[in-house]
Amino acid sequence: MATSTLQDLLIETLRDTYNAEKQLVKALPRMAKAATSIELRTAFTNHLDVTVEQVNRLEQVFQLLGVPVRGKRCAAMEGLIEEGKELMAEDIEPQVLDAGLIASAQKVEHYEIAAYGTLRTWADMLGHTEAAEMFQTTLDEESEADETLTLLAETGVNAEANSAGADMEDGR
Amino acid sequence: MATSTLQDLLIETLRDTYNAEKQLVKALPRMAKAATSIELRTAFTNHLDVTVEQVNRLEQVFQLLGVPVRGKRCAAMEGLIEEGKELMAEDIEPQVLDAGLIASAQKVEHYEIAAYGTLRTWADMLGHTEAAEMFQTTLDEESEADETLTLLAETGVNAEANSAGADMEDGR
Repeated sequence: MATSTLQDLLIETLRDTYNAEKQLVKALPRMAKAATSIELRTAFTNHLDVTVEQVNRLEQVFQLLGVPVRGKRCAAMEGLIEEGKELMAEDIEPQVLDAGLIASAQKVEHYEIAAYGTLRTWADMLGHTEAAEMFQTTLDEESEADETLTLLAETGVNAEANSAGADMEDGR
Repeated sequence: MATSTLQDLLIETLRDTYNAEKQLVKALPRMAKAATSIELRTAFTNHLDVTVEQVNRLEQVFQLLGVPVRGKRCAAMEGLIEEGKELMAEDIEPQVLDAGLIASAQKVEHYEIAAYGTLRTWADMLGHTEAAEMFQTTLDEESEADETLTLLAETGVNAEANSAGADMEDGR
């Protein structure tokens, strides 16, 4: 299909983002299961609920725009999730794994922040006011999720990861 | 290699980011060539210079940490660049392509913002003050690049993309 107008590009990006969110719905339970810190596990579980709601919101946008609900393979999210899987397959201290999981999740959040920022701007320009508002709602949720992860990284989890590393070095 | 400490994870993420930046050094000239708007082409060309400098900065960090300069395949950046290539291969109005190129580039910037934010936090926690400062410098540059792209998206390029779409529809 030729992407000749901004409207076409909006729909294509919507499909890419829909596929990305659905990949994330599958990945988040694995990440929650791999997390050691209760706060981090809770953050992932909560974000799963939010993500399921975001998938529903995207389906509503498809309807608003009068196009069928259909995803399109998102190679970038595949790469992001592949990196997370590689991390979880490594021989790694639990607290250090938590630090790595936060880093993976923040890359995912930033992918989505960029995607929804673009979708919101294009929807606005094309006069799809309701769709633009829905993208903005999700964008705010993604930014909030990113901030929660930053807080976990800076206060709790990474400090434990660092002391776990130091303990190991002491024990060598 | 087992990633058992936060220091190991830092080095692994450094290698991933080094590979990501080198992929971007190859991709940016193609993106600049594909851009129609002079402002956008200039933004990509300028960011190429900045990215080359960021690669040098990462090489200095490898030296500071006393580890060999070596990349590690970054699957996420591969996915991001693949999406950009797909876009450039499409049959698409030049101004709409510009809007898509901005969106692709912002996803790349956000990947890097997440990566350098993590690297800075970990370097800080591990007492690698000089490395942390270098990561912060790059982080600021990536945020600035993202803001430049947002400005181009909101003011010039997307408006042209939208009117190009409207012109086409008028002509149907």
